[in-house]
Amino acid sequence: MKYYLGLDVGGTNLAAGIVDENCNLLHKESIPAGAGRSVEEITSDMAKVSKSVVKHLGLPMSKISFWGIGMPSYVNPQTGLLVHANCFGWKNLDIYSYLQKHSSLPIYIENDANCAALGEVLAGAGKGYHDVLMLTLGTGLGGGIILNKKIYAGADMMGAELGHTKLCYHGSSCTCGQLGCAEAYCSATALIRQAKEALQGNESSVMYELCGKNPEQLNAKMVVDAYKMGDQVAQNVFLQYVDYLSCAMSSFIVIFRPEIIILGGGVSNVGDTLLLPLKKKVMENTYAADVIGVPEIRLAECGNDAGIIGAAMLEKYGMDRKKNGVS
Amino acid sequence: MKYYLGLDVGGTNLAAGIVDENCNLLHKESIPAGAGRSVEEITSDMAKVSKSVVKHLGLPMSKISFWGIGMPSYVNPQTGLLVHANCFGWKNLDIYSYLQKHSSLPIYIENDANCAALGEVLAGAGKGYHDVLMLTLGTGLGGGIILNKKIYAGADMMGAELGHTKLCYHGSSCTCGQLGCAEAYCSATALIRQAKEALQGNESSVMYELCGKNPEQLNAKMVVDAYKMGDQVAQNVFLQYVDYLSCAMSSFIVIFRPEIIILGGGVSNVGDTLLLPLKKKVMENTYAADVIGVPEIRLAECGNDAGIIGAAMLEKYGMDRKKNGVS
Repeated sequence: MKYYLGLDVGGTNLAAGIVDENCNLLHKESIPAGAGRSVEEITSDMAKVSKSVVKHLGLPMSKISFWGIGMPSYVNPQTGLLVHANCFGWKNLDIYSYLQKHSSLPIYIENDANCAALGEVLAGAGKGYHDVLMLTLGTGLGGGIILNKKIYAGADMMGAELGHTKLCYHGSSCTCGQLGCAEAYCSATALIRQAKEALQGNESSVMYELCGKNPEQLNAKMVVDAYKMGDQVAQNVFLQYVDYLSCAMSSFIVIFRPEIIILGGGVSNVGDTLLLPLKKKVMENTYAADVIGVPEIRLAECGNDAGIIGAAMLEKYGMDRKKNGVS
Repeated sequence: MKYYLGLDVGGTNLAAGIVDENCNLLHKESIPAGAGRSVEEITSDMAKVSKSVVKHLGLPMSKISFWGIGMPSYVNPQTGLLVHANCFGWKNLDIYSYLQKHSSLPIYIENDANCAALGEVLAGAGKGYHDVLMLTLGTGLGGGIILNKKIYAGADMMGAELGHTKLCYHGSSCTCGQLGCAEAYCSATALIRQAKEALQGNESSVMYELCGKNPEQLNAKMVVDAYKMGDQVAQNVFLQYVDYLSCAMSSFIVIFRPEIIILGGGVSNVGDTLLLPLKKKVMENTYAADVIGVPEIRLAECGNDAGIIGAAMLEKYGMDRKKNGVS
């Protein structure tokens, strides 16, 4: 049996795990990311938590063939530098040189949304499928593309940024500095913003009670709870959000015609409350849906484990970065 | 030397050609498509013009290994049926059975925009590149995607419909029945519509003279001519069109990060008048362009030959339809 080491790096936690060749996550551990500290400290902790899971299982390092890492950034294959990890304030960082001080394993870094998509295809809602899109409805709108069971991240491996396609020409401001990105309408953050806007002058809405009369405390769950309670303001907001999301999805469908689209992230936790109206809207808003149908739409199943599993399995299912001179 | 037979089927003409294994178009012929006639008549003419080019070169049929056909539709790989060829009024047509009456060559049908993109990559502006997008700015907005030097048309081979991604959420009506498609803003037809709208109440515009005071006669060249003459109304229209197109392109860039984007079709004939402002706008309107750059943008070089060359070379560079049971 072969074993793979996966590390999912986020702004909040560093989560490591050991995955066997059948994509089973055997053990995982998590420590705070400690954003704000030096590169040396954080990369040292990345190695520490990774080695700790190996030790916990009593495996000798020689049994581990690979260290895959998912990060909220890309490695530029031309330069080998981590392009921009916002949460750590890292820009054009030679992260490989820091990590190699701690391990002689082959290291492979991939965008975390791509890792999550791969994890879901190998061990979750996408099991058995070859062509899958994953959208993560969280702080941002993460996108992952799996083509023929491998991560697809664009010709230079810095693409698949589904959240930064344009949904509303010159529309709302996105955190990326552009206007009208799908992320600015379809993330959990966007849903909350839309609800806050709707609350202005609508203090009779149940949402206003749920957030303790302080709209700054409003979260996505409160919006959906109020919607389920029949609150009219929340209903308008949530169904409008669903319509935005369906239109973003329609663009990805007409390009990729994936077998399945998997939804993860905070908003997806509401399950059928999202899925049922969304499926209807995707049918309505997608070109040629009446003639050739639309893909299945399902909820993610692996939760936070998807990122670890996907990272661990990058050796087999990642894009081939070696041709670009990155170890 | 191997020879390949390519046929580009449009609503106006049926254009056939013989291409050698180095992607040289050796000879071509074209006859009117005769839309409105029966399937038997049109498919018979498709075979006739194709055989004629073989005969002209004095090649025995045994030297031809393949008949590739580009059509303004898709073949559904599950059913083997041509989904919807608007210009002929064909829907769910078993076109293979008609064509096989005329030839025992292996037949392969692909969407015409995909064939044009492949032709440009093999013999035109995309020569030497592996990952290429092509946009055809014509009656519609055609899209072709070449990944790793092969046509990519989505998991079920009915995707790559770049023109029907959403650019303006719930915006202008598209011919496809949806709202806000990129095609409704970026095709030559859209440019003309935008110019006609701008002409209302602006009869002092040079465009009004160029179309003989009859806006129904306005075409894309007149809009660009007026723009080049410094006409303010035309300038507003054309630069707005360029901005729409740049935003559509930005979505494709952040997904695919192609090495190059090739522009074909009527509007592309104006050359640098389009290219120069477009390149500037693509830089402005694309996520992370300042950090990781944007692809090269070039004009198509093969004109109408691209479709013939691409169709002929489908055997080697097409998607593998055989796995879906289509001959």
